[in-house]
Amino acid sequence: MPLPYLTPLHANALAAHGIPAGWSFGMADRVRFGELDALNHVNNIVYLRWFETLRVAYIQDYGLSDYVDQTADPEIVVRDLSARYLKPMFANESYIVTARTAAFRTTSFTMEYAVYSGDLRATGTAVIVCLKRDGTGRWPLPDAVRTRFLEEDGAEAAS
Amino acid sequence: MPLPYLTPLHANALAAHGIPAGWSFGMADRVRFGELDALNHVNNIVYLRWFETLRVAYIQDYGLSDYVDQTADPEIVVRDLSARYLKPMFANESYIVTARTAAFRTTSFTMEYAVYSGDLRATGTAVIVCLKRDGTGRWPLPDAVRTRFLEEDGAEAAS
Amino acid sequence: MPLPYLTPLHANALAAHGIPAGWSFGMADRVRFGELDALNHVNNIVYLRWFETLRVAYIQDYGLSDYVDQTADPEIVVRDLSARYLKPMFANESYIVTARTAAFRTTSFTMEYAVYSGDLRATGTAVIVCLKRDGTGRWPLPDAVRTRFLEEDGAEAAS
Amino acid sequence: MPLPYLTPLHANALAAHGIPAGWSFGMADRVRFGELDALNHVNNIVYLRWFETLRVAYIQDYGLSDYVDQTADPEIVVRDLSARYLKPMFANESYIVTARTAAFRTTSFTMEYAVYSGDLRATGTAVIVCLKRDGTGRWPLPDAVRTRFLEEDGAEAAS
Repeated sequence: MPLPYLTPLHANALAAHGIPAGWSFGMADRVRFGELDALNHVNNIVYLRWFETLRVAYIQDYGLSDYVDQTADPEIVVRDLSARYLKPMFANESYIVTARTAAFRTTSFTMEYAVYSGDLRATGTAVIVCLKRDGTGRWPLPDAVRTRFLEEDGAEAAS
Repeated sequence: MPLPYLTPLHANALAAHGIPAGWSFGMADRVRFGELDALNHVNNIVYLRWFETLRVAYIQDYGLSDYVDQTADPEIVVRDLSARYLKPMFANESYIVTARTAAFRTTSFTMEYAVYSGDLRATGTAVIVCLKRDGTGRWPLPDAVRTRFLEEDGAEAAS
Repeated sequence: MPLPYLTPLHANALAAHGIPAGWSFGMADRVRFGELDALNHVNNIVYLRWFETLRVAYIQDYGLSDYVDQTADPEIVVRDLSARYLKPMFANESYIVTARTAAFRTTSFTMEYAVYSGDLRATGTAVIVCLKRDGTGRWPLPDAVRTRFLEEDGAEAAS
Repeated sequence: MPLPYLTPLHANALAAHGIPAGWSFGMADRVRFGELDALNHVNNIVYLRWFETLRVAYIQDYGLSDYVDQTADPEIVVRDLSARYLKPMFANESYIVTARTAAFRTTSFTMEYAVYSGDLRATGTAVIVCLKRDGTGRWPLPDAVRTRFLEEDGAEAAS
């Protein structure tokens, strides 16, 4: 079965493509020429772009924001990003990038990412804060989102 | 039937997705958050990136270059690029980008591109020259490639 | 005298750095690692990014749009872009990119660009249309802008 | 005195532009249109690109690698990247990005980055490992580089 590129992949589809348990949201894609740098491998920063593309799809899918209406609450603010590089990636390689929420608080959550292409190539994290658009402070995560974090992602709830 | 994202799409698949006759090589994809600019539509330059991704796939598929071995003939040199913007594209839109060779000479060829998302959004061109790696001049297109240009793309042969 | 990087450079400064007569607006910069591609030279598309950066500075400098207030007339729409590549550029090279309006009509204008690094490396064009934000049609170029096109750029006025 | 854009700025120049003590290597630049995203501020990932540009200049300046000869030791491998976002940046803002080595071991070092535009906007880190090109393992940092890390950056030496 060919890989269903781009379509958000959920737990069963990820498992069918050999992704370890614990990931319930992912996307398949293929390295493009413009993602390589002068060292002939995928540039380090491009992985952060992959995480961003998946993060936006995840946040839309979980109903937190549509990223289109810039007046609707919440404003999604990325506070921290990180990436760890385990093994380089090269031209034309197919890969699956995965995302999940590892932990959440009342108004913020921490996401984890991974890139698999046969083996694990890179991991990443993001800390995301939800704000009210009117500038009066933080915006609490709704129960429906907290439930998905808990049930689909196995996230840890704090305070 | 869901769109088979990324996979090179040939004439029949393109026709099945409503692309006009005359295109025999394409790829489906979806607008990503990082491709939007401050004006909230796909940045003009991003279309050139889509054309590049498809051009590399096309040149590999047609057997001209694998873009990996940088000692093998020919060296592919882009001499000219252009794009015309007909209608803006927005977040999350799905599209098909198409490519063909419109005309070729002994050592060069002119490609055309189009982006369809329901209707035609943008077109583009590229003029490509083939060089020998040893610096002794131009590299003639092999007969197998000329035949594909003629038969699959309906390209016009000049001199 | 070190090159005053980034600062918009006008006719005298450009002449002092060896740019041919006929250019009255430019910017100096230096090739960055992230602008190289897997072929180890500046990626073709990056030149279009340089043209864009200078085009925005030019349009702000000429008083056409501040690119910030997205409700103010005119809406600046890029209709066509092109680039011609004469000689590749490599890591760390310093260059000057130049812009001018070559011709204008009542509601549109055609810009030209060039990249110099010792010699001429690339040229480009853009066709730009000015629209009213209320959707009622084209927005006429004000006399002050037409005068600068004529006097500073030597542009040709049509209709 | 206008800001000397791009030129590597050393401790005195940084201090003259209001950068806190403790930074001895930096570069000035200005936000470009193409660095903004659909939220109208500088995209999160663009800061990592700024850190990369400065990291390459720093590594060249410190004599570790010229990033051109891909056969010369060491191979510079980025193992980890991170960024923390304190305050958003907008169109046309001028900024100074700074870099230093905070700690080093025999064959690796940890860099820190900061972006100042009036106040502190973002910080970052990178963990960099030096490898031998022949695949036989790690490449030890030469004494001259260790001395610069200690004397110019105030880096901490470990094992």
